[in-house]
Amino acid sequence: MTDKKTTTAALLIIGDEILSGRTKDANLNHLAVWLGERGIQLKEARVIPDEEDIIVSAVNHCRAEFYYVFTTGGIGPTHDDITASCVAKAFGVPFGYHDEALRILTDYYGEQDLTDARKRMAMIPEGGILIDNPVSRAPGFQMDNVFVMAGIPKVMQAMLRDIEPRLEGGDKVLSRAIYVYRGESWFSALLEQVQNQFSGLSIGSYPFMNKGVFGATFVLRSQHEDVLEQALKLLQQGIEASGEEWHEGEPEKDPRWSGSPMNN
Amino acid sequence: MTDKKTTTAALLIIGDEILSGRTKDANLNHLAVWLGERGIQLKEARVIPDEEDIIVSAVNHCRAEFYYVFTTGGIGPTHDDITASCVAKAFGVPFGYHDEALRILTDYYGEQDLTDARKRMAMIPEGGILIDNPVSRAPGFQMDNVFVMAGIPKVMQAMLRDIEPRLEGGDKVLSRAIYVYRGESWFSALLEQVQNQFSGLSIGSYPFMNKGVFGATFVLRSQHEDVLEQALKLLQQGIEASGEEWHEGEPEKDPRWSGSPMNN
Repeated sequence: MTDKKTTTAALLIIGDEILSGRTKDANLNHLAVWLGERGIQLKEARVIPDEEDIIVSAVNHCRAEFYYVFTTGGIGPTHDDITASCVAKAFGVPFGYHDEALRILTDYYGEQDLTDARKRMAMIPEGGILIDNPVSRAPGFQMDNVFVMAGIPKVMQAMLRDIEPRLEGGDKVLSRAIYVYRGESWFSALLEQVQNQFSGLSIGSYPFMNKGVFGATFVLRSQHEDVLEQALKLLQQGIEASGEEWHEGEPEKDPRWSGSPMNN
Repeated sequence: MTDKKTTTAALLIIGDEILSGRTKDANLNHLAVWLGERGIQLKEARVIPDEEDIIVSAVNHCRAEFYYVFTTGGIGPTHDDITASCVAKAFGVPFGYHDEALRILTDYYGEQDLTDARKRMAMIPEGGILIDNPVSRAPGFQMDNVFVMAGIPKVMQAMLRDIEPRLEGGDKVLSRAIYVYRGESWFSALLEQVQNQFSGLSIGSYPFMNKGVFGATFVLRSQHEDVLEQALKLLQQGIEASGEEWHEGEPEKDPRWSGSPMNN
C-alpha cells in the first residue's frame, strides 16, 4: 500500500449566539464538505463563547494540534467582536491597523464614513495576511496556519475562494455507500470483520427509516481506492451470503423520521 | 444586586459523519435552547471523531470543567459505536451488561432476536443510571454529571424528557432584543458604553439584511431582570438621541441573505 498524505484541520466557531441557541450554525457542514473535497480532513470543531481566555487557549491548542485552523465569527465592528485581538494575543504579536485593510475600507465607505468603529475592522495581528471579502469588504486574515473568517455564511463562503490557493491538500478520503432494508445490528459482526481486514479503512453504519421501513447505510471511507473497492466487494458478498439485498448509494431521506438529516 | 446561580454545560457531538460533512448536526441548537429554558448555560460544544483517546480525554476534560456534560452519538449496535465503553474508560470503571437494560431489550426484540450485536446496547459503565428511550428502546445512561444520549435527533429529544427531572437549573439567562435599520458600527460606542455600565450584562450585535435593507439586532442578556430593563432603556435612549428609530424584538429573516439563519 503506497503511503498517503493526510492533512488535518480544526474549526473554531466563535460566538455566544450559537451557544445560546439564538443562531443556528451553518458553517460547520459547509466547511467540512469543502475541505474534504480538497483533501483536508476536518478532525475537530469547537463552538466557544466570545471570551478572550477561552478563544486564546483554543487557538493555541488547535494550531499546535492540527495542520490548519479555521475560525468563524467575531470580526465585525462592535465591542463583542474580539476574535482578531485574541488571535494576536495567541501568537504574542502586536495588534494594530493594517495599511491595505484601511485602504480597502476607505475605498468602500469613503473617508467621511470610515468611523472609528468601522476602522476597527482594519486591525489585525502583526504579520497577518489579508483574506479578501468580496461581499462586505471588511477582510479576514491568515496568521501562519490559522485562517480567520467572518461568521455570516455568505461572507465565510466567499472568503474560502481567496483561501483556496493557499491550502495544501492531502490525499482525499474517498467514500462509497451502500444500504440495506434491515436493521444495522444484523450486519454488526460482518462490518467489524471487513473493517479489521484492511488498514486505512473506516466503516460507518447509519440507521434510517424510509417510507416506513427501517434500514441502514454503510459508508466505507479510505484514502486508498483499491482498499475501498476490495472492502466494498467483501461487504456486498457478506450481505448476499446472509440472504439480504444491498443497494448502491444512499437512500432518499424520509422527512418524517427527523426534521433534518440524522445524526447517529 | 442579589447573587444568581449559574449552571454550566458542555455538549460532545461524537461522530465521524458530522466531521466528514455527510450528516448535518441537528442536536446542538435544540439542546442549547432546551437547556437555556431550564436555566442551564451551554458554554462549549465539541464535535469529535469516533476515536477512543479523543473521546476519553474530551469526556474527562468537560466533566471537570462544566456542571453537566451531554454527549450525542455512538451508542448503537455496531463496531463504530464506542461512546459507552469510552465513558467507562474515562471514569475508570468496569464496562458490562446492565440487567435492566438487558430486560428492556429482551422485551422489545424478544429472546430469539436479541442478537449479540443488539445485546451490546445493554452494556454500560458500572454505576450508570439508565436514560429511557421511548422511541427505539435502547437506553442512554447517566454517569455522575455526564448524560450519554443517542445521536438521532428524535431519540435524543425523547431522552431529554427522562433527563429533565434529574437536572438542577440555575437562574435563567433572560434576553431582550431590539433592532435598527442602520449598520451596527453606527452604535458601536453606545453598545460598549451600555455594556460596561452593568455587571452581569452582555450585549450581542448581529447584522442582518431584510427586504434589501441592512440593519442590526442588539440582544441583551442577563440573569437580572432589573439590569436588563435598565440597560434596554439606556440603549433605546441612546439610539433615539442619535436620531434613529429602534424596533422591538427581532426582524423577520430574509432567506436571500443566507441559506439559513446567520452566524456572526
